[in-house]
Amino acid sequence: MKILVIGDVIGKPGRDALRDILPGLKQEYKIDFTIVNGENTAGGIGITPATAQDLISAGADVITTGNHVWKHRDIATVMDEESLPVIRPLNYPPGVPGQGYVLKDKVLVVNLMGRTFMYDIDCPFRSIDALLCKLNFKPAAIIVDFHAEATSEKMALGFYLDGRVSAVLGTHTHVATCDTRLLPKNTAYVSDIGMVGPIDSIIGDEPDAVIQRFLTGIPGRLSVAQGRVMLNAVVVTVNTKTGLATGIERIYREIS
Amino acid sequence: MKILVIGDVIGKPGRDALRDILPGLKQEYKIDFTIVNGENTAGGIGITPATAQDLISAGADVITTGNHVWKHRDIATVMDEESLPVIRPLNYPPGVPGQGYVLKDKVLVVNLMGRTFMYDIDCPFRSIDALLCKLNFKPAAIIVDFHAEATSEKMALGFYLDGRVSAVLGTHTHVATCDTRLLPKNTAYVSDIGMVGPIDSIIGDEPDAVIQRFLTGIPGRLSVAQGRVMLNAVVVTVNTKTGLATGIERIYREIS
Amino acid sequence: MKILVIGDVIGKPGRDALRDILPGLKQEYKIDFTIVNGENTAGGIGITPATAQDLISAGADVITTGNHVWKHRDIATVMDEESLPVIRPLNYPPGVPGQGYVLKDKVLVVNLMGRTFMYDIDCPFRSIDALLCKLNFKPAAIIVDFHAEATSEKMALGFYLDGRVSAVLGTHTHVATCDTRLLPKNTAYVSDIGMVGPIDSIIGDEPDAVIQRFLTGIPGRLSVAQGRVMLNAVVVTVNTKTGLATGIERIYREIS
Amino acid sequence: MKILVIGDVIGKPGRDALRDILPGLKQEYKIDFTIVNGENTAGGIGITPATAQDLISAGADVITTGNHVWKHRDIATVMDEESLPVIRPLNYPPGVPGQGYVLKDKVLVVNLMGRTFMYDIDCPFRSIDALLCKLNFKPAAIIVDFHAEATSEKMALGFYLDGRVSAVLGTHTHVATCDTRLLPKNTAYVSDIGMVGPIDSIIGDEPDAVIQRFLTGIPGRLSVAQGRVMLNAVVVTVNTKTGLATGIERIYREIS
Ligand SMILES: [Fe+2]
Ligand SMILES: [Fe+2]
Ligand SMILES: [Fe+2]
Ligand SMILES: [Fe+2]
Ligand SMILES: [Fe+2]
Ligand SMILES: [Fe+2]
Ligand SMILES: [Fe+2]
Ligand SMILES: [Fe+2]
Repeated sequence: MKILVIGDVIGKPGRDALRDILPGLKQEYKIDFTIVNGENTAGGIGITPATAQDLISAGADVITTGNHVWKHRDIATVMDEESLPVIRPLNYPPGVPGQGYVLKDKVLVVNLMGRTFMYDIDCPFRSIDALLCKLNFKPAAIIVDFHAEATSEKMALGFYLDGRVSAVLGTHTHVATCDTRLLPKNTAYVSDIGMVGPIDSIIGDEPDAVIQRFLTGIPGRLSVAQGRVMLNAVVVTVNTKTGLATGIERIYREIS
Repeated sequence: MKILVIGDVIGKPGRDALRDILPGLKQEYKIDFTIVNGENTAGGIGITPATAQDLISAGADVITTGNHVWKHRDIATVMDEESLPVIRPLNYPPGVPGQGYVLKDKVLVVNLMGRTFMYDIDCPFRSIDALLCKLNFKPAAIIVDFHAEATSEKMALGFYLDGRVSAVLGTHTHVATCDTRLLPKNTAYVSDIGMVGPIDSIIGDEPDAVIQRFLTGIPGRLSVAQGRVMLNAVVVTVNTKTGLATGIERIYREIS
Repeated sequence: MKILVIGDVIGKPGRDALRDILPGLKQEYKIDFTIVNGENTAGGIGITPATAQDLISAGADVITTGNHVWKHRDIATVMDEESLPVIRPLNYPPGVPGQGYVLKDKVLVVNLMGRTFMYDIDCPFRSIDALLCKLNFKPAAIIVDFHAEATSEKMALGFYLDGRVSAVLGTHTHVATCDTRLLPKNTAYVSDIGMVGPIDSIIGDEPDAVIQRFLTGIPGRLSVAQGRVMLNAVVVTVNTKTGLATGIERIYREIS
Repeated sequence: MKILVIGDVIGKPGRDALRDILPGLKQEYKIDFTIVNGENTAGGIGITPATAQDLISAGADVITTGNHVWKHRDIATVMDEESLPVIRPLNYPPGVPGQGYVLKDKVLVVNLMGRTFMYDIDCPFRSIDALLCKLNFKPAAIIVDFHAEATSEKMALGFYLDGRVSAVLGTHTHVATCDTRLLPKNTAYVSDIGMVGPIDSIIGDEPDAVIQRFLTGIPGRLSVAQGRVMLNAVVVTVNTKTGLATGIERIYREIS
């Protein structure tokens, strides 16, 4: 089974690029299932029902998110109705809207968020432990989108889940890392998938405003950059008998 | 001019691998100048005069460092004597031992450190501005090792210095990123070079102890992992007339 | 000379209480000069020209601020025109609007901001060193509002400036501390003056929403609490010949 | 019932002062039960079986700790044997040595730690909820030592537990706050009790070394300061029928 996982899609340039390129990619790689991180689809920060629908229309099966998920609160409505397959990090505490995982076509997709340099939420390691424990069936694949900052925390989760899930795939830094690999017990791993967003940008945003932030210490308004877009993604090949990975491959494309 | 820049070298496994592989690499790529980040050479954290000497003996021309530079204080002695070409981040405040840059063979090597999620030191952007302003000659190349955590800060420095230095090369996360590129005005850039250290590790350390830290919240002792080592590096090609880059290329090797 | 310094004034309840109580306080304590921290006057976060004018009308001579100063950007206009005596932390980098100090009636008021757990701006210690160095006259008093989180950083600045300024007075935590004292060389010190805001609140805000933030990890909207207001302030007595303090006294009042 | 709660005791000067003053204090205030925070008793950071024994010998009934508890690992042995009544924050994850609460003489003492600007451990709010839920008897008093940095988190826990515990008392900043009060539903509260340590110090440490840390950004070695010691404590009066507080009073003493 071939599962395509696409990193943080940035604003309108990212959504447009995805719509144009995703159908061809799925055909070319004979993709069975597609996961897209949508936390930056709405103007560069957050996600709305409309931008989530754009990703689904483009061909996503499931949408994961991250720290920006609550920027636009109306996303919670589609999560609670389950009218769109949008999930938020599983390790948000009890009482938070939405779900942290979804099962579709026998693929269990789990979203987790790191804590190092991020927010004070529940332990991602124990949150997924609890989820895996309560499963009373064996999914064909289990894909974890680990939305986190620190490379140490990302790799720690990878080794922790090695042999128990099909893949631990990092998102959030918006920069693709070179460390796609199979861990010793056949879990596919990458520290960060990277983004779908403007090439001449600082993690998606127009460079000048970001530079001003660093020069002044003032949290000024940022805006999504223009111009050619890059797409970063990975394809994980899963043996649906074992639920483990047999391969992971990077995809990089540029779109005008 | 071809400049080889090698990311954080981890402990004895990293030093040994470097000694074995560097002479061949330099020959193969016709390297004119070699820079190595040594902040993790001494037992995985910090650098000593002895481990710095190991890197020089292996073929390094200049050694850069980062946030762990003061773990073993005796490194300050070789810095202040300039008996070894070891530098520390330039944006440490006045009064701190050592230098933040060194000129050797007409190559100006500058070490900077980020502040996001790191320490409260001087502004890296203005620190290098001040250095570039006071230069009363034109180096053949200017290479910046930007030791930082956040991808936004790294890229912001890249765009900020674009056209003014030969390369802005990230270190510190120990994970190689895929974004080697020439910025619009011909400064070579990568968010992180990646490390020289054990493959089956969490950023160089033995995985079980790192996982325990995340599970318990207790800052337990870590140790450098064993086994096969990977080397991550980049080669920057510089036009010494303009001082700008004409290319940047990744190198990845595994050593038993 | 008696200088009254009042901590962070919270929203409309804080402004109203100040207007009602300040004239009487000034008379009672024979106050010569009044400084008020206004960073929370506008709806609990930030300051506007209108809320700054409210503080002046209530009797403030100078208004200091802190990390929330840029929440409403139009405050920059009155700072740059100097139409109102509003200052922002001195250790913002060059190029930032406004001034970090003001001289009025021979009293030099300086605003500084801490970096620990806060923003990446310039060193507060060296920023005030530079200011003190360039003074070509001796003010009657020098009062520093140090807007900072960590008690260690606040006290470190106190000891650092001991004997060089009249007072180092902390703001930002909104909680009054018991450590009003004269440091060994006669600088008056307190870790935090405390706020002017609703008593039944969490640092000024309505408790339920703050509790929800901690329970959910979601950065929800806060609102200024209602009900009786407390005023926290200190009176520093300065010997204008030496420019050093001879006393510091706390004031605590409740207003219906 | 009168319960004396004493903040972070700093090194030998703090232990010596406590031994000299505690017996008299207990007599003077007719204290029934004494709790002491011991996380800084061993050389200024951490606690050992020997320094814990010193506090017990001085008259403590229960010892609480905080973020420095694991600095000297042998403290875990006395915790697990329960040979000394030393507890650590309850919201450390499962598997961590020791206990987060202790019942003695019908007084339930609970230690919690904040997360804001601190460590990634379990939610303190839900941790104590779970503990209170599983109690199958009514203690005469429940005293919470909340070891935390941010005033907002401390107050939030106070309001959250108001009416459910006898007292929520902050420790960790080493600076006493003025906000001792009864919350609306009769839980006693203070943001920080303050320390038992040298007066001319920066939160217990010799000032020059702390100032150097801020000036250089280098994490240099600190040492406990010398000279006269201050003691900060609170006395909480509890109605053992309701388990709620009827009063809270500050104690401040200086010892040569
Ligand atoms: Fe994110
Ligand atoms: Fe993102
Ligand atoms: Fe580093
Ligand atoms: Fe490193
Ligand atoms: Fe503030
Ligand atoms: Fe404030
Ligand atoms: Fe502490
Ligand atoms: Fe402490």
